[in-house]
Amino acid sequence: MSLLVTGTVAFDAIETPFGKTDKIIGGAATYVSLAASYFTGSVGLIAVVGDDFPQTYIDFLKSRGIDTSGLQVKEGEKSFFWSGRYFNDMNSRETLITELNVLADFDPIVPSGLDAPDYLMLGNLAPKVQSTLISRLSKRPKLIAMDTMNFWMDVAMDDLKETLKMVDVLTINDEEARQLSGEYSLIKASRKIREMGPKYLIIKKGEHGALLFYNDKVFFAPAMLLEDVFDPTGAGDTFAGGFIGWLAKTDDISFENMKRAIIYGSALASFCVEKFGTDNIVNIDENLLQERVAAFKELSYVEMLP
Amino acid sequence: MSLLVTGTVAFDAIETPFGKTDKIIGGAATYVSLAASYFTGSVGLIAVVGDDFPQTYIDFLKSRGIDTSGLQVKEGEKSFFWSGRYFNDMNSRETLITELNVLADFDPIVPSGLDAPDYLMLGNLAPKVQSTLISRLSKRPKLIAMDTMNFWMDVAMDDLKETLKMVDVLTINDEEARQLSGEYSLIKASRKIREMGPKYLIIKKGEHGALLFYNDKVFFAPAMLLEDVFDPTGAGDTFAGGFIGWLAKTDDISFENMKRAIIYGSALASFCVEKFGTDNIVNIDENLLQERVAAFKELSYVEMLP
Repeated sequence: MSLLVTGTVAFDAIETPFGKTDKIIGGAATYVSLAASYFTGSVGLIAVVGDDFPQTYIDFLKSRGIDTSGLQVKEGEKSFFWSGRYFNDMNSRETLITELNVLADFDPIVPSGLDAPDYLMLGNLAPKVQSTLISRLSKRPKLIAMDTMNFWMDVAMDDLKETLKMVDVLTINDEEARQLSGEYSLIKASRKIREMGPKYLIIKKGEHGALLFYNDKVFFAPAMLLEDVFDPTGAGDTFAGGFIGWLAKTDDISFENMKRAIIYGSALASFCVEKFGTDNIVNIDENLLQERVAAFKELSYVEMLP
Repeated sequence: MSLLVTGTVAFDAIETPFGKTDKIIGGAATYVSLAASYFTGSVGLIAVVGDDFPQTYIDFLKSRGIDTSGLQVKEGEKSFFWSGRYFNDMNSRETLITELNVLADFDPIVPSGLDAPDYLMLGNLAPKVQSTLISRLSKRPKLIAMDTMNFWMDVAMDDLKETLKMVDVLTINDEEARQLSGEYSLIKASRKIREMGPKYLIIKKGEHGALLFYNDKVFFAPAMLLEDVFDPTGAGDTFAGGFIGWLAKTDDISFENMKRAIIYGSALASFCVEKFGTDNIVNIDENLLQERVAAFKELSYVEMLP
């Protein structure tokens, strides 16, 4: 089934304890659409870049089956740029530079061929832009998933709450779930957040795995234990892309299939963090991916005695 | 099969965001032996208290099938006392009072009826006392498990490393695993720690679950999501008691059965934190326990498509 993705397409400059990069390709929608492209050949991208963004990378996205007709290229302007440094624990980071550039007045224009997706993934963006995109579709998608971050809770909480009413699935991390709900207990937090709109809540916990909440059900997905986490940038977006890509491929939004989607998303994210930026997710071997998925299933499998 | 347990039997005074207690019964060996008593009727206890320790509680332990002939009661002396305060996140705490009292010169004397256990659980104590107890057994148990904490890494690392050489299973938390190994990556930490002696390593991660490492295998056990964690005191000891109790009951130390043991330990620990001290583990209904175990298995169960 068709999937539409929005979010940033950008340059990042990253420092980790393992090294640093110059400007490399990044942005939520880049990671989401790349990850989803492993599962579905029908991915459309709504985003904006400046004329400094390399055509070779746009061509690469096309080669992965991603429809870039909704990627606006603004002549004479620069792409969004973010630079950050991760601390030793790799769980916390500081932002060094944020240059909004083309993102400052991003108007998500939807080409007519992309305006009726079955699945929609709203990658991290201003919540107002996310809701504008929804309003421009010709029909309500079967499932709308949304990612956001603490930044929007600080500066645009009202917009965020309006957009939350329009979506089915929210993905955030544990700190953000606590901030959004004002509850420390994640089970209480999940209840309050689901009263804000999304029926499904996914709480991403990095090296501790992920939680899926729906009605009175909870799924606790493990995280792969890796020798080293080289660069966490984009891991959450890759997770979201794998998740929504699997749902679009299978066209099954049952709780059981969402659990599988989380395993696929987690497997892709575990590749993402093993190298800088998108380096390790541009060309994942199908067998390696299936091996990683099998390892995930094995990780928490236990056969109890009758 | 028979199980021998050592560790502290003590008084605790606890403050949490939910309230505070006067002196209540606590201590690692109390939690371990109580938890193990749900699985095996053959639990022996080696510990020391002062004459301030209530005979009624010793009688209660006996009523749970725990052999207290190795519990020394020192006339004219006082029991070990610990007081602490948990912060809002319930993951960190500060120690307010530590009175060693009878623990200062604890000599772990093993009555002849208890000197040949099949399973041994060394609850948190000075590592020198833990190794002394091992040396006093008439035969090497089938499995020796050991719990310890960062305090002993700070003040008795050499003793700790000697004791580690004598045990099969070590249970510690993630911060302690990082401190003991000097490695941030838990997979690297687990390798270094297992080179120190224990073939099996269990890393306890509180609300994030637990990890079991053995050879090149890893098991990622989920944690139950609770409305509120009321008092974390004794959760790790209860986990260890459930773990070793299940192994002693089934007399099966395969990796598959250790995974089950971790689920049983986790289930008991999830009861422990729901009330102050030992209140919620002195009398767990068998049906409730089985329900909780089933919920644990369900929590991370996923059926992948072929």
